[in-house]
Amino acid sequence: MRDTYQEQLDELASGLADMCDDVARAMARATTALLEADLQLAEQVISEDIKIDDVRAAAEHRAFGLLALQAPVATDLRVVVAAIHGAGDIERMGDLALHVAQAARRRHPQTVLPDEVKSYFAEMGRVGVELAEKAGRVIRTRDLDAANELEADDDAVDDIHQHMFTVLMDRNWTHGVSAAVDVALLARFYERYADHAVAVARRIVYVVTGQMPGPLAV
Amino acid sequence: MRDTYQEQLDELASGLADMCDDVARAMARATTALLEADLQLAEQVISEDIKIDDVRAAAEHRAFGLLALQAPVATDLRVVVAAIHGAGDIERMGDLALHVAQAARRRHPQTVLPDEVKSYFAEMGRVGVELAEKAGRVIRTRDLDAANELEADDDAVDDIHQHMFTVLMDRNWTHGVSAAVDVALLARFYERYADHAVAVARRIVYVVTGQMPGPLAV
Repeated sequence: MRDTYQEQLDELASGLADMCDDVARAMARATTALLEADLQLAEQVISEDIKIDDVRAAAEHRAFGLLALQAPVATDLRVVVAAIHGAGDIERMGDLALHVAQAARRRHPQTVLPDEVKSYFAEMGRVGVELAEKAGRVIRTRDLDAANELEADDDAVDDIHQHMFTVLMDRNWTHGVSAAVDVALLARFYERYADHAVAVARRIVYVVTGQMPGPLAV
Repeated sequence: MRDTYQEQLDELASGLADMCDDVARAMARATTALLEADLQLAEQVISEDIKIDDVRAAAEHRAFGLLALQAPVATDLRVVVAAIHGAGDIERMGDLALHVAQAARRRHPQTVLPDEVKSYFAEMGRVGVELAEKAGRVIRTRDLDAANELEADDDAVDDIHQHMFTVLMDRNWTHGVSAAVDVALLARFYERYADHAVAVARRIVYVVTGQMPGPLAV
């Protein structure tokens, strides 16, 4: 039995929203793995990334099929194009969670982060996961107020990201070059993760309003 | 006078190929600015990034118009979808060139890089620019051999990127934490730039063959 057109569109959106939940879970686990040097959890994130890649490929395939067979227009077309973009952003969020997990694995049984910065990463992780979950909700509900919330959350991650550099450049940094490089790159992974979540939400604003809200995240 | 369908498709592709040339030029200039602490050149890259963003928006608009009005199928549809992805990748390459230029500006009149790593960045810059130019040629010609060449070039950038970390972690690194963080992040910008060029070429392989060659760059 073949799905109706509207069902196919709904499946595309709900598949994407589920993908947001997947990468939220991946980042939650990766952050715990990072903070607690939990190798098993790191391995789990690493081995499950391939599933996120597969879901992205399936979403793209579904979007392509809709374009080819249904030739959607207007809002429906915006949904499909937003899904193509969104699938890319969300897969990238999965990759960034993967990078965090890989850092945790690389330094195991040591922890990657000096104690003095752990709370910042806990916070970036917490807000990042929330951003991914909110992006999923925005896809499901097309709630523009929720979409706007993501921008403020993203600013919080940007602020911590910036602050990490202040900490690293401080002459009281006693943890050496290797730890500093890890902190700088990891902070960037969280910042990029948040940027992609915002990009997903902005695409949904575009679906609803026909206008992109501001520039895409840099 | 309205363009014909085929002309619109050709314009979409040639606009994208031109965008590759733009981001190649941006990265060439950003690399010179970085290596020679050339503030004027850095400022130029920074001020011109907005143009690349505009070209991306125009490409997306054109792609959307084609989907809405022409409902392309088969290879033509693959071209349009590849263009949507490609525009995103190429704009990101422009952002990464921008980040390199911003680093050069931030440390001016100092140079960002210790002398001992400059040659590596010159090489990553050279190969990166070449990758962007080749991606443009692949879009124009759909030459699959050229597309495959990009994978080998990308491996060269990955190797240098990896080597940079070996240099940073070496106990003979005498340039301190700040320079190490700059080197690590800049090396990552070049690596990501190369990854996006490869992703563009892979999308063209998909246009021609209907098959994606391997996973997308992580």
